Amino acid sequence: MPSEFEIIRRFFERPVCAVLGVGDDAALVRPAAGMEIAVSTDLLVEGRHFRAAADPRKLGHKALAVNLSDMAAMGATPRWLTLALSLPDAEEAWIAAFADGLFALAARFGVELIGGDTVRGPRSICICILGEVPEGRALRRDAARPGDDVWVSGELGGAALALAHPGIDDAERRLHEPEPRVALGERLRAHANAAIDVSDGFAQDLGHILERSACGALVHYDRLPKCAAFARVGTPELERQCVLSGGDDYELVFTAPPGVRAAIEDVARDTGVPLARVGTIRPGDPTLSIADRHGNEIPVARGFDHFSA
Amino acid sequence: MPSEFEIIRRFFERPVCAVLGVGDDAALVRPAAGMEIAVSTDLLVEGRHFRAAADPRKLGHKALAVNLSDMAAMGATPRWLTLALSLPDAEEAWIAAFADGLFALAARFGVELIGGDTVRGPRSICICILGEVPEGRALRRDAARPGDDVWVSGELGGAALALAHPGIDDAERRLHEPEPRVALGERLRAHANAAIDVSDGFAQDLGHILERSACGALVHYDRLPKCAAFARVGTPELERQCVLSGGDDYELVFTAPPGVRAAIEDVARDTGVPLARVGTIRPGDPTLSIADRHGNEIPVARGFDHFSA
Repeated sequence: MPSEFEIIRRFFERPVCAVLGVGDDAALVRPAAGMEIAVSTDLLVEGRHFRAAADPRKLGHKALAVNLSDMAAMGATPRWLTLALSLPDAEEAWIAAFADGLFALAARFGVELIGGDTVRGPRSICICILGEVPEGRALRRDAARPGDDVWVSGELGGAALALAHPGIDDAERRLHEPEPRVALGERLRAHANAAIDVSDGFAQDLGHILERSACGALVHYDRLPKCAAFARVGTPELERQCVLSGGDDYELVFTAPPGVRAAIEDVARDTGVPLARVGTIRPGDPTLSIADRHGNEIPVARGFDHFSA
Repeated sequence: MPSEFEIIRRFFERPVCAVLGVGDDAALVRPAAGMEIAVSTDLLVEGRHFRAAADPRKLGHKALAVNLSDMAAMGATPRWLTLALSLPDAEEAWIAAFADGLFALAARFGVELIGGDTVRGPRSICICILGEVPEGRALRRDAARPGDDVWVSGELGGAALALAHPGIDDAERRLHEPEPRVALGERLRAHANAAIDVSDGFAQDLGHILERSACGALVHYDRLPKCAAFARVGTPELERQCVLSGGDDYELVFTAPPGVRAAIEDVARDTGVPLARVGTIRPGDPTLSIADRHGNEIPVARGFDHFSA
């Protein structure tokens, strides 16, 4: 069985452009002048966020993707990550496949693994990601303004649908191999006010923007982009539940003044990511109203909460 | 039972000087000009690094202390941290005590909690810490040079002694409430070449410097600073095992040219941390020789490895 140090050397120590990568007490990075560093961390626990039998390659992809998505939601350019792994034993095939999935995605986005920790314990994965964003230009949750349009990227509900109806390819891909909207987030810095990624569910995540920005929103259910598979499977109730309260979609929800609609359409065309204008930010209480095509309000179930779910 | 978001708000969201702290997709920090960012992460797992019955206040202290120690070993000034917590349930008293211990130590060193994640699962604690160090001035493991003196701060073996003989106050404090050598690390930037902190055991950790620097070392066992309690308890064998191979002491081991001995004595006086000159870096294979008072070599057991222990 390889030692902790061999595991790190064989699977996780790769050449980096950072000043100093894996293998010292700390890594060293040198941010560009005029940049703020965006920092985020996510912890995935077996039995909670993934099954014991989960494909380790896809898990390596997803563990990094959820962190890249946080960078996208800030409009930050992801640069560096640390990886803390707790593993029940040193299964080389599992680790190699996990590392493959993680490094393949990291290479696509030019992010470098610069440090980590490997311990024996219940299987869990903790990534901390660092990105760069020009000073004062990050897309914060507290920056929505009354009158802003509310926009959503891609489509919603696919990841939750995959849990309810396993075997639908594009829904499964959503759930297990989400595509973080990094290029979109970078482009939106120039136009959007507030942004968040959909990890706990559209309604709950937009709710975080409303709370932090101290305003409300009206969203039209019909305008929400939905996973195409809902046309073939499930009920209208399931669709509503998945689209409004399903987590793990990793799309961006953002707000922007009406004056930049044309610019945002350009961003959609340039990045190839569909962007739907789904509602409006309103003054007042941080309440989200979702209306059906007749203007009647649709009640919303709460999204995912780790200690009440 | 409080929700995930209430736990974060009530126990972990505090005002910060960082650009943006807890509560968005990512935190934002602005490093000073001319600084590199040092980044390190440590994962502590229940049953492995701490017992289920561990005092949560001391655990909050230790979880942060081991990360501060990594900054000290780089000569970096710790600035910001993220905290990812996996907890079997939302026990408020446990979380409050843990947060107390962590924030008390954070306040002493001026570090800010800027982000994190809270999930339900087997109890574990993952901290990622960020520090600042002037460009090119970090104390790396690969910078020892033949002819350098080898130095050790404080005293060794106390934490391991506490495991072998519970109930000895200063040894227990070592194990459960280690004091990270941050001020020492900052001062050593001006004088030392290589440094590491003693987390896995003196011999193994100095061995990491030797491997990375491609040189050997001769260390005199009698000159190693030892926990005072060894005068009263244990055997010479236990002492040797604890001093050479015991982990968790969080002292600094560093190398520096003989020309700066007087400067290092000044650092010891100014910081109040005893510094012992214990040996010499030699050209050749990365082999550590430890000699007794008669010049005979003392065999060394390997230190801690998470997958072979």
